Amino acid sequence: MNYKMIGRFLGQILSIEGLFMIPAALISVGYGEWNTVLAFLITMGAITGTCLLIFLTCHKAPKILNAREGMICVGFSWIVLSLFGCLPFVLSGDIPRYIDAFFEIVSGFTTTGASILSNVEDLSKGVLYWRSFSHWLGGMGVLVFLLAVSPGDKDTGFTMHLLRAESPGPEVGKLTPRMRKTASILYIIYIALTIINIIFLLCGGMHWLEAICTAFGTAGTGGFGIKNDSIGSFSPYIQYVTTVFMFLFGINFSCYYLLLLRQFRSVFRDEELRTYIAIVVVAIVLIVLNIRHMYSTLEETFRHASFTVSSIVTTTGYCTTDFDQWPAFSKSIIMFLMMVGACAGSTGGGLKVSRLLYLLKSLGRNITQVLNPRRVKAIRNNGSVVSQQVLDNTNAYLAAYVSILVFSFVIVSLDNNTIGTNFTAVLSCFNNIGPGLEAVGPTCNFAHYSNLSKLVLSADMLAGRLEIFPILALFARGTWKH
Amino acid sequence: MNYKMIGRFLGQILSIEGLFMIPAALISVGYGEWNTVLAFLITMGAITGTCLLIFLTCHKAPKILNAREGMICVGFSWIVLSLFGCLPFVLSGDIPRYIDAFFEIVSGFTTTGASILSNVEDLSKGVLYWRSFSHWLGGMGVLVFLLAVSPGDKDTGFTMHLLRAESPGPEVGKLTPRMRKTASILYIIYIALTIINIIFLLCGGMHWLEAICTAFGTAGTGGFGIKNDSIGSFSPYIQYVTTVFMFLFGINFSCYYLLLLRQFRSVFRDEELRTYIAIVVVAIVLIVLNIRHMYSTLEETFRHASFTVSSIVTTTGYCTTDFDQWPAFSKSIIMFLMMVGACAGSTGGGLKVSRLLYLLKSLGRNITQVLNPRRVKAIRNNGSVVSQQVLDNTNAYLAAYVSILVFSFVIVSLDNNTIGTNFTAVLSCFNNIGPGLEAVGPTCNFAHYSNLSKLVLSADMLAGRLEIFPILALFARGTWKH
Repeated sequence: MNYKMIGRFLGQILSIEGLFMIPAALISVGYGEWNTVLAFLITMGAITGTCLLIFLTCHKAPKILNAREGMICVGFSWIVLSLFGCLPFVLSGDIPRYIDAFFEIVSGFTTTGASILSNVEDLSKGVLYWRSFSHWLGGMGVLVFLLAVSPGDKDTGFTMHLLRAESPGPEVGKLTPRMRKTASILYIIYIALTIINIIFLLCGGMHWLEAICTAFGTAGTGGFGIKNDSIGSFSPYIQYVTTVFMFLFGINFSCYYLLLLRQFRSVFRDEELRTYIAIVVVAIVLIVLNIRHMYSTLEETFRHASFTVSSIVTTTGYCTTDFDQWPAFSKSIIMFLMMVGACAGSTGGGLKVSRLLYLLKSLGRNITQVLNPRRVKAIRNNGSVVSQQVLDNTNAYLAAYVSILVFSFVIVSLDNNTIGTNFTAVLSCFNNIGPGLEAVGPTCNFAHYSNLSKLVLSADMLAGRLEIFPILALFARGTWKH
Repeated sequence: MNYKMIGRFLGQILSIEGLFMIPAALISVGYGEWNTVLAFLITMGAITGTCLLIFLTCHKAPKILNAREGMICVGFSWIVLSLFGCLPFVLSGDIPRYIDAFFEIVSGFTTTGASILSNVEDLSKGVLYWRSFSHWLGGMGVLVFLLAVSPGDKDTGFTMHLLRAESPGPEVGKLTPRMRKTASILYIIYIALTIINIIFLLCGGMHWLEAICTAFGTAGTGGFGIKNDSIGSFSPYIQYVTTVFMFLFGINFSCYYLLLLRQFRSVFRDEELRTYIAIVVVAIVLIVLNIRHMYSTLEETFRHASFTVSSIVTTTGYCTTDFDQWPAFSKSIIMFLMMVGACAGSTGGGLKVSRLLYLLKSLGRNITQVLNPRRVKAIRNNGSVVSQQVLDNTNAYLAAYVSILVFSFVIVSLDNNTIGTNFTAVLSCFNNIGPGLEAVGPTCNFAHYSNLSKLVLSADMLAGRLEIFPILALFARGTWKH
């Protein structure tokens, strides 16, 4: 195991985190929150010290990592990021308990948006910014960022491993033959869309800091609100803008790249995109029919339904209304959307629409083969054959997904909540959504859970964001042999 | 499509059902329940008429069926059995509504044990016997019975298809090279174990009819109680006997065959059996620790815990206590056991322990391959390599399992119950258990569900018992092409 290279890598990641704390600290300076400024300075000092120590110890490391070490890098760097990232919360006194702060920042980086705070509006502005910024950074991935900005022309196997481990979806879409270039393109699209979102929000008369934080939460499909009622008290215009942008950030980013290349036909024919749109439309229609009687106008019904569907399917987790009050049918659709999640290659979480398609197609093939044992059928996606390797991985993913869901549910049940609460808490954290139902519904928070449950849910969030294997690898016996 | 042969086959199955109604009718005669006697006679008349019609129409049919037609036979015959099997309930007036009676008999044949009756003790004895007997018949499978008793030496592909479709588990254990002989051996073991169970119950001072009915429910891992509180009011002796026999009927029947052949070592080394025992022991220990404070003595705690674990993991569904009152942790373990189910090749339902093993092993292999892309690893069960075909089927099974679970949950949620109620109702029916939690808990029943939900839950029970594909095949486009 190339520990020195792993160390260097963690050092690089940490220094990026330290740099990104500067804007947060400056905002605190602007608002005269000296306590928070000090908290950021101490954290940056701790990060600098740690990085120096790492670079001194690990300066002579062979620059080659294998798949296993790449996996470990990804798993570890997200944990280390969170361990340091929550320090400003604790030091500023905004979230006094370390475990709560850790839960909160993991929820931020993994773009979950589940919170232990009952009163968000009391947070200092710098902390509020840092909390929302963690969504933005976690959304596209901090390792992808490192790839995008790091110099060097050569793609090593390592960069591929990194991109594969951190990018959501069953296959890594190679936009360009060069990984680093792909990473840069992804980040440019990401930044551009975020800026457009901010402009739209500013046009609605939002305060600049609120607009930035809301856009960060939307872009990363995170969902940390800056008001206690999330997006509920903002104008219908802001709500519609957020609905549309949540939906847009749930689309595979390669579609935007193809649009830039004017390949409209291949975007239009993309099976995953079509399924994603179909799921959203059907869910909105069903929910509107089901909750029509609860709101006075059809417009309001449609607004809440479309906002909630867009928020849940993209695993953002913003809300405009307490959907825990909706009838059981709508809630069951919400739980279904929680599992499905957004498109692969977007910032959203969940199983991903393409995985769902592969699973259903592979199921269909299996039924065909049971009926006609002699027929051999290949599975196609957008016309090209999907390799058996990808299908095997997808099936293993489902098995891991269900196992972790069940295992976490059993542990979290040690806190004596209802089945609905515990199940949706796990579902929500694992799929990086944010709110669940019942005692973790849109108007509630996760503060009442025990430390053990908070740790398990944090692990679930990390496993969900990194698509299970990098986190599972940390616990696998095979990883640490030899 | 060879409709004539399918018709003939359905006719044969129906005549067996008609014959099996005779004991039930005789019991009614013995108890002087003339109303019920008439109900059985009318049903038998209807069956005879239908069979005559079928045999007259389909007398000249080629005796060959392909895999697809075999699938359809299995799916249809269970539906036809249920359509006629519930007639005595309706005609005797014990269950006046046809949809309720249909739900009840499907629950019987599929060995689920979910009931729409609030007062079982009011049923006439003949109906009570028929209701419990449906468990026994469904447990080992009525098509397997047909195989066991039908004359002829040759195994056609058809017999293999039948056995495969109706026997639970990822692979059909070929006990002997000849399928018909295998079917006979299975039934002989089944009958012998049932008789031993009845004798043990009679030794505990149980009434003969109660002993027979209870043993039927245990043997088929069904769980229809003959008292309103299931097994709760019987003596601890009866409860312990039932605990042990439920556990025994959850073991793969080939193990008993191997015991008869004195191959003790291969039974002892069977991975599925070991895992099954481990799951049961761990679950009992955890639940005892969790509910110790709720009962006065350790013996009582252990008795209820072991009974419930044995009842749920084998998907029987008998109960001695209202486990819906247990803490959330115990309830989450129960939900886990509901999903796992018993061993393949037993009368129990659920995913099956061997499928769980395959899924976990295949997941482990996948993690290894992600970590070391160049390593190739075969998956072994009891030392021999599991074919890729079986693994693919197991993965497809999980995909189908999860899809049906989610889909049914959404439909059933149209009835405005809690998440816990709806989810455990689907879980319980699909895994052929019987009771769920909350409003479908051990002290409640399924009567409050709407007709649509009852139909969906009935379909779930059938899909669960026949391991999804024969029922899914009925709805597949490919089945009806050409």
